[in-house]
Amino acid sequence: MRRVLHAFNYREVQTPTFEEIELFLAKSGPGIREEIYDFKDKSGRELCLRPELTAPVMRFYFGSGLKVEPKPVKLFYFGPCYRYDRPQAGRYREFWQLGCELVGDDSPEGHAELLHLALGLFEEAGLKNYNLRVGHLSILRSLLEGLGFPPKEQSPLMRLIDKKETEPLGEALRAKVDARSADAFLKVFEYRTFDQLKQLSGSAQTQAAYAHLQRVWRRLEGFGVDLKKVQLDPTIARGLEYYTGLVFELDAPDLGAEKQLLGGGEYDLSSVFGESPVPAVGFALGFDRTLVALEKSGGLATTNQPVDAVVAALSEGGVAAAQRLGNRLRERDLCVELDLSAKGAKRSLGRASTLGARVIVLLGDQEVAKGQATLKNLASGEQVTVPESEVLRRLESWLQAVPVRA
Amino acid sequence: MRRVLHAFNYREVQTPTFEEIELFLAKSGPGIREEIYDFKDKSGRELCLRPELTAPVMRFYFGSGLKVEPKPVKLFYFGPCYRYDRPQAGRYREFWQLGCELVGDDSPEGHAELLHLALGLFEEAGLKNYNLRVGHLSILRSLLEGLGFPPKEQSPLMRLIDKKETEPLGEALRAKVDARSADAFLKVFEYRTFDQLKQLSGSAQTQAAYAHLQRVWRRLEGFGVDLKKVQLDPTIARGLEYYTGLVFELDAPDLGAEKQLLGGGEYDLSSVFGESPVPAVGFALGFDRTLVALEKSGGLATTNQPVDAVVAALSEGGVAAAQRLGNRLRERDLCVELDLSAKGAKRSLGRASTLGARVIVLLGDQEVAKGQATLKNLASGEQVTVPESEVLRRLESWLQAVPVRA
Repeated sequence: MRRVLHAFNYREVQTPTFEEIELFLAKSGPGIREEIYDFKDKSGRELCLRPELTAPVMRFYFGSGLKVEPKPVKLFYFGPCYRYDRPQAGRYREFWQLGCELVGDDSPEGHAELLHLALGLFEEAGLKNYNLRVGHLSILRSLLEGLGFPPKEQSPLMRLIDKKETEPLGEALRAKVDARSADAFLKVFEYRTFDQLKQLSGSAQTQAAYAHLQRVWRRLEGFGVDLKKVQLDPTIARGLEYYTGLVFELDAPDLGAEKQLLGGGEYDLSSVFGESPVPAVGFALGFDRTLVALEKSGGLATTNQPVDAVVAALSEGGVAAAQRLGNRLRERDLCVELDLSAKGAKRSLGRASTLGARVIVLLGDQEVAKGQATLKNLASGEQVTVPESEVLRRLESWLQAVPVRA
Repeated sequence: MRRVLHAFNYREVQTPTFEEIELFLAKSGPGIREEIYDFKDKSGRELCLRPELTAPVMRFYFGSGLKVEPKPVKLFYFGPCYRYDRPQAGRYREFWQLGCELVGDDSPEGHAELLHLALGLFEEAGLKNYNLRVGHLSILRSLLEGLGFPPKEQSPLMRLIDKKETEPLGEALRAKVDARSADAFLKVFEYRTFDQLKQLSGSAQTQAAYAHLQRVWRRLEGFGVDLKKVQLDPTIARGLEYYTGLVFELDAPDLGAEKQLLGGGEYDLSSVFGESPVPAVGFALGFDRTLVALEKSGGLATTNQPVDAVVAALSEGGVAAAQRLGNRLRERDLCVELDLSAKGAKRSLGRASTLGARVIVLLGDQEVAKGQATLKNLASGEQVTVPESEVLRRLESWLQAVPVRA
C-alpha cells in the first residue's frame, strides 16, 4: 500500500499517539467522549489516545509549513487509533487506520483520482470482492430543506439515514410533512442510477451535485475503474456532521454485518483551527478489518518468512569461514541463519529442517582446507561441493528455482 | 534497518500501546511509576502507555506459541514508547524504539552475532562515528561480593557505578571496607583491556565472564567488526536490576551529553510471568536520537521525494490519454502527479516546476490525434514528441540519467 501511495505522490505524516481531547470534541461533537480513552497526565492536562487521524493530520497541516505549500497537498497516515468500545471481529480497542487527505482540490478529477487510489490500495493488497458506494450530501440536505427541515434540524434525520433506519426516519418526517412527501423522500433509498437521481426536482445544489458526480464517474471510467464495483448511493450520510459534499464507503460483502472497510468524503476542518476555509477530501481505511477480509478471501499470506540458507560451521575451523560467508549472503539481503555451534552436520541439518530453510551450507575442516563449501538443496536433496567463490552463484540459482516451502 | 533484520532472520512483533502497569513495575521496580503515563480506563483498570518494549514482547513470547518453538527465537520490534519526562534534544515524551530479543541462546556466538547485528543497523543507516562498550555484570558483582557486599546490598552501589559517580561510590565502599580495597575496586573504572581485567583476582564467575567476553571478541573479529570501535568496559552496570550477564551500550560521540543510542544485555524475565528460566539477550535502539546523530553527521536525507513525472492533459481531449499513461507509469512504481485540469501547457509547466518534477508529459488534442505524447526533460530542457508506445522507454532512460534535483 505504501508503494501505491508513493506512486500517487502522497507523503506520509506521523502525529502523536495522544492529543488534547478538545480536538476530537470539536471535530466529532461531545458524543465521542464516551468512545475515547481519555485521561489526565501528571500535570492535570486532559489528554486522550487518538480515536482517528484526520483531525490530528489537519492540526499538523494548519500548524506547519504545509498550509502555505502550493495546493493540492497530498498526505497519508498509517498508525494505531483507540476506541473504548466492545471488541468484536475486526473491531478492536486498538486498531490501525491508513488514510489519505487531499487538501486544496475539490475538482471531480481530484475526487476521482482519490477514489481510484482507494481502490488501488485494495487491489494491490489482493482484495477482489469489494463494493464502493458514492453519494453527495447536497442531495439529501437539499431534499430535507425542500421538505421544510432547515440545516439545524437535519442532524437527527441524517443519523437515522446513516443507519438506514427507515421506519423511525419515516415517523420523524411525517411529524412535519404529509405522508406522500415523506414516502417520496424514502424512495431515494432505492435510487442507484443517474436516471433515477435525475427525477428529483432539483434545487441548484442538487443539480451541481448531480453534475459533479457524473463527472467523477466519467473520470473513474477514464482511469479504467471497473464501474460494476462502484454504485451511486444518494443515501450515504456518514455519521459525522463535518462532512460537506462528496461521501463514499467501501464494503467487503464477504464480511457480513461488519463489512465496511473504508469511509470518507469532503470536509472542512479549518474553523476548528481558526483558519480560512480550504477544501479537503479524504478517507480512512480500517486496516485490521481489511486483513480479516483478505484472510477470508484467501489473499493473506501469514506463513513465516522462509530462511534462505543456514550456514553451518561443522568444527571450530569452519567458524570464521561461516561468518564471512554469512556476511556476504546477508549483504545480498538473503535471510540467513548462522550455526556456529560446531557440533556436527547432523545437528545443523536438524536445525535447518526445523527452520524450513531452503539450503544449508556446511563448512568443515576439509572444506576450509580446500577453500570449498558443501551446499545441500533441502527441497531437492541435491548436494554439491564447490569452491567458495562459486557458493553465491550456486545458492542464488537454487533459490530462484526452488519454490518456497509452505 | 528492517532489511538488515530480515537478513538476520529476526521476526517483527507488534504489541499494544497500553499495558497493565504491573508489567513494568515487575520489570523495572516501583521507581518507574513516576516516569510512566498511567491512567485508569472507564472500567477502573490501571493502564499505562508502554515505557519500553522488552517486557511487552516477552509477555507476548510467554503467552504465545513462540515459547514452545525451537530455540533460539529471534524477535524485533519498532514502535513508539512513552515517558513522562522533561523533553529535550533527542529525548521526547513519545519516542520510537527499535529493539531485538534473542531468546534461548546464551552462547558467545549468539551474543557476538547480536552485537554484529546492532552495529549493522547503524552502518546500514549511514552512521559511521559510534563507539560500542561491552562488559559483564558478573565481574562487578563478584568483586562487590568479595568486598563483603552480598547481592541484596549491591543495588545502590550498582546505581552509582551506572552513573559513574565514583566519589559517592568510594564513600559507600569505605563505610564497609578499608581504603586500599575501595581504591582497588575504583581502579576497575580505568580498565579497558583484557590484560588489565586478567589482574583481577578471580572468582570462578569472573573467570567465566572473562572467557565469555574473550570469545565474544574473537567472534566479533570473525564477523569483520572494526574492533577499534568496540571497547571493553567492566563498569557498565545498566540502570535496571534485571540484567544478568553481558551488558553493552553504544554511543555517538558527536551528540555530547545525551549520546547513548543503544543499550542492552542479558536478562531473564521468566519469573515475572511465572515461567521457567530461559536465557535472553536484547537491545533497544533509540530511534529519534539516532536520527539526530545522523542529522549531525550529514547522513540523513530529509528532502521530499522527487516527483518522477507530471502527466498533463492540455485539453479535454487529452484527459483520458493522461489517465491511461498515469496508470502505466504508476504500475511501474514511478511517482506521478496527474494534471487533468486541461488549462494549458503554461499552467501545467508551472505546477511541474513547483513540484520539482523531473519530467513533464503533455497530452493535447494534436498529440492524441496522432497517438503521440510530448515529453520535456525539466533538468536538461530537452523536449521530444514520440509515439505513445515509446513514452515509457524514453521516460525511464531520462530518469536513470538525470540526477535527482535537491
